[in-house]
Amino acid sequence: LELQLKDLPSLVRGAAFFGAGGGGDPYVGQLMLEQALVAGASIRIIDKEALADGAFVVTVACMGAPTVMTEKIPNIISLEKTLRHMEKILNRQVDAIIPLEIGGINSTLPLILAAKTGLPVIDADGMGRAFPEIQMVTFGVYGCGISPVIVGNEGGDIVVVDAANNKQGEDLARSVVTQMGGQAQICCYPMTGAQIKATAVTGTLSLALEVGRAIEQAHGSGLDPFDHLFQHISELDPERAIRVLFDGKVVDIDRQTRGGFNFGSIQLQGIERFTGTLRVQFQNENIVAYRNDKMVAVVPDLIIVMDRETAEPLTSESIKYGQRVKVVGLSVPAMMTTPEALSVFGPKAFGLDHTYQSIAALEF
Amino acid sequence: LELQLKDLPSLVRGAAFFGAGGGGDPYVGQLMLEQALVAGASIRIIDKEALADGAFVVTVACMGAPTVMTEKIPNIISLEKTLRHMEKILNRQVDAIIPLEIGGINSTLPLILAAKTGLPVIDADGMGRAFPEIQMVTFGVYGCGISPVIVGNEGGDIVVVDAANNKQGEDLARSVVTQMGGQAQICCYPMTGAQIKATAVTGTLSLALEVGRAIEQAHGSGLDPFDHLFQHISELDPERAIRVLFDGKVVDIDRQTRGGFNFGSIQLQGIERFTGTLRVQFQNENIVAYRNDKMVAVVPDLIIVMDRETAEPLTSESIKYGQRVKVVGLSVPAMMTTPEALSVFGPKAFGLDHTYQSIAALEF
Repeated sequence: LELQLKDLPSLVRGAAFFGAGGGGDPYVGQLMLEQALVAGASIRIIDKEALADGAFVVTVACMGAPTVMTEKIPNIISLEKTLRHMEKILNRQVDAIIPLEIGGINSTLPLILAAKTGLPVIDADGMGRAFPEIQMVTFGVYGCGISPVIVGNEGGDIVVVDAANNKQGEDLARSVVTQMGGQAQICCYPMTGAQIKATAVTGTLSLALEVGRAIEQAHGSGLDPFDHLFQHISELDPERAIRVLFDGKVVDIDRQTRGGFNFGSIQLQGIERFTGTLRVQFQNENIVAYRNDKMVAVVPDLIIVMDRETAEPLTSESIKYGQRVKVVGLSVPAMMTTPEALSVFGPKAFGLDHTYQSIAALEF
Repeated sequence: LELQLKDLPSLVRGAAFFGAGGGGDPYVGQLMLEQALVAGASIRIIDKEALADGAFVVTVACMGAPTVMTEKIPNIISLEKTLRHMEKILNRQVDAIIPLEIGGINSTLPLILAAKTGLPVIDADGMGRAFPEIQMVTFGVYGCGISPVIVGNEGGDIVVVDAANNKQGEDLARSVVTQMGGQAQICCYPMTGAQIKATAVTGTLSLALEVGRAIEQAHGSGLDPFDHLFQHISELDPERAIRVLFDGKVVDIDRQTRGGFNFGSIQLQGIERFTGTLRVQFQNENIVAYRNDKMVAVVPDLIIVMDRETAEPLTSESIKYGQRVKVVGLSVPAMMTTPEALSVFGPKAFGLDHTYQSIAALEF
């Protein structure tokens, strides 16, 4: 698959959907990608099965609080430097790039770097969505090490974190990123092709593209964008549950940027058949939703706040008071809800005293 | 010079003196050194002139807030790992170690590592005292680079900071150290013998030893320990000014541990010929002293709070309410008061809106 200019709006819309409120504004990434494609670059997306078992693969991403990223945009020169530094340290040339997460700007950054370097990007990722912390990946859940984490900024500083474990890698890299001004570029999770095949969430770049297309198809066609999207996702992946969790207007927003994250919550007042309130709590990404104080969705399932009319996915930093929205829940692939996976990105990993239940199982 | 068991109390007392209120409690270092010497290790101290110009020299130190170091003591295994990591990265064996600072625990750590590795320690350092930040060294003032800064902890994490400039190296390493729990081991300033000869403050290990000895000689001899010490220092280094800035009792102490430092101040009420008050402000080390609101000493000159009877140097974290103390001012070598030096560790580098004046020049 070679990415085309006309795919970009769909891809970015889908990436915003899988961002689940976080992931950083993918629009900046869209502009960068457009620029690269217009300049004649080609971006090759490959299946993970096409990788040789011994291939050398890394992730690249932008790390930081999404609120900061809206003003301090990712720096591609520095992103490439982190990858080159990884090559230098491990004395090996990178064969392919895999996105750390498919949500938000970190789905497009690997593509932009691919345009710059000619490296292929794998149609898969480590989260099947966006999560706030870099140890929250299936790579790590299923045995891959985060280290070294190379952190680079536009000023030319490079920090190499060799951590005793993946969570410590996140904590140390986060403190560096915070010191660097709340946003920096990283390269981490050096892996083999065999490790990618065993641990990555498959087909997520093309899934994001399809989700974006489905939303667009509904525009101006008279179709209900939510019905159309739900049907499309069910066809692409019949094992996923998807549903509208709430329909309402925003009556309160609370946002704080601290410790390198955005924390906060959004409060909705119901419209039409949805009575009462819904409260969505986020740490960069939406992590739990309570309807009239009863939990109706929780991580790792996706909670996506979307424009009520257009089904445009909204990030938590862009949501405004009074906005009319629908909140959608989407379940995740089975490999993301095993006990090992839930210990890394289930409710307790976010400090929530809940047991994970799929949106398919939660009473409603 | 080979360090003897009987030298340790003097060395550590002298190191506390040059710690100027900070530097961390050197007593822990004394115990570690005793253990090494009793076990048969030999510790060789060499003049910087004995170095080959092409020799490879590094600094090692413990970085963090002294208050934290009293509970989380330096880890020598991890300290050696940072040095070995430096050797690995730069692909070169270290020939000698130089203390980053002569004040406090960082004067003894290089000696402990010397006992473990057999490497010689140079009788010189980068501060001629203790300073709170690792870019505040004559090495950096006169052109040596801080990077890479290797940061290691007892948990086996290793972080390598390659910073665009020395201050940025401090800031990034500090954020890592803070994340590691407020204290960690570092190896930095890879230098050549020629660079050491051009930039280090000479003879400071032996000077610390002499200062400690002078204080001890006065104990039980009937000599006034302050007179004896002052005379001794004037003989060793006639260019230094030294004087009692105040004699009083502690009536207020304010201490905060934040951002990886101890900040605060000590307020004294005068005794005998010293009327009014003295306020000493510190950031790890004492940085400025005001007598009745008039500045009487400021960095880089040393401000040392000492027990009024025994002339025992006191660290800012050990000083207690009601304690009777004398505050001593000591000027620094000329290479530490050039415009380049003052821009790195003069009053403005500490956020003080003062112009440096030597204690020799300040009205009193």
